Amino acid sequence: MFLLTPFLVAVVCILMLWIFKNADGGTERRNGEPRAEARPWVDEDLMGSTDVHQEEAGTAPSGAHTEPWTFVVVKDPDVKHKIREIIEEEEEINYLKRMGPRWVTDLKKFRTNWIKEYLDTAPVLILIFKQVHGFAANGKKKIHYYNEISVSIACGILLAALQNAGLVTVTTTPLNCGPRLRVLLNRPTNEKLLMLLPVGYPSEDATVPNLTRKTLDQIMVTV
Amino acid sequence: MFLLTPFLVAVVCILMLWIFKNADGGTERRNGEPRAEARPWVDEDLMGSTDVHQEEAGTAPSGAHTEPWTFVVVKDPDVKHKIREIIEEEEEINYLKRMGPRWVTDLKKFRTNWIKEYLDTAPVLILIFKQVHGFAANGKKKIHYYNEISVSIACGILLAALQNAGLVTVTTTPLNCGPRLRVLLNRPTNEKLLMLLPVGYPSEDATVPNLTRKTLDQIMVTV
Repeated sequence: MFLLTPFLVAVVCILMLWIFKNADGGTERRNGEPRAEARPWVDEDLMGSTDVHQEEAGTAPSGAHTEPWTFVVVKDPDVKHKIREIIEEEEEINYLKRMGPRWVTDLKKFRTNWIKEYLDTAPVLILIFKQVHGFAANGKKKIHYYNEISVSIACGILLAALQNAGLVTVTTTPLNCGPRLRVLLNRPTNEKLLMLLPVGYPSEDATVPNLTRKTLDQIMVTV
Repeated sequence: MFLLTPFLVAVVCILMLWIFKNADGGTERRNGEPRAEARPWVDEDLMGSTDVHQEEAGTAPSGAHTEPWTFVVVKDPDVKHKIREIIEEEEEINYLKRMGPRWVTDLKKFRTNWIKEYLDTAPVLILIFKQVHGFAANGKKKIHYYNEISVSIACGILLAALQNAGLVTVTTTPLNCGPRLRVLLNRPTNEKLLMLLPVGYPSEDATVPNLTRKTLDQIMVTV
């Protein structure tokens, strides 16, 4: 296992570059409308299943061990398409109005916009919900301490597990889409969408933004 | 790498059980004062370094690729002891006053209290700070979108990396200790403590709380 670690770091770096390039990369405007590039996913079903990766994510620590997460794995093409319609509609308003010029500028280098073709083309979408509170056996409300941090940690473990399986994804947080997606997927009112991960194998011609990362001495201090 | 996955899941489950048991497990009151159990860490320095694991954590995705994390790795025994003094002082007030009876009750099964011997005995403490905002090259404030979620994802990847290296830890969020620890460790005002991980190899007689986890069908839905 120890020999894997530098290899894993290298693979993660390459795949993170791939992910950011292909999230919504390379769109061009034609006739005033953004156009998405070629799909970055291979034309095949996921070999095996992503279930085991959710299981690994579920081993995460959580505030008072409340395990406040729900992983909704969407494979049905019609449901994926409805998800896409909702997200593109809300994201268009986000980009044109809600986010404001500063945020839009900060995202320019990723060349993203409200066209999210991957929501149709990725074989699997994993929507991760945080349970802002739970219910005890007697039906009373149960406090979910640090639920957002806990579910985010679980997402980190999920990303590592997907990575380890040779799969790729992009970490998205579809702004203002949560309530409509929650209703579409029949999730209860105590669940709020935290993240959406499209998952699949990368196509051979996939490309990613040429991002650089901070060096270790820029992110770590030793005392 | 694929053969590792079920093994990894099993190891994670065992180690998570170990971690929760040994965080502050088994304290008993004598003469009105909590008493900590035997140290759960082996009497040896960490073989190699934890640097590579911070590097892996630094490959995490982040809002607008702002990489809003600082990992402070503390090995100096005097500094570790000062950290312990600060945390135990604040945690005593937390348990006796700030947290309130409900939270204290919800934590009873973990048998934790304000005695944190592991802060002295663990070979390494990793304090993870989130940068609530950054600074552009021209000195202007830079927005760090989703900084808490981003740093928490990085923590999840860090936990997986530590796990993969055979190390163990416990995820702690020392309540109300952030400002004093930030000053002790000379971190700037835009950094807030998110988590503290004591890291080491488990001792042979280490024990963990007998916690159970939700099954896959309780945390995952397929559409």
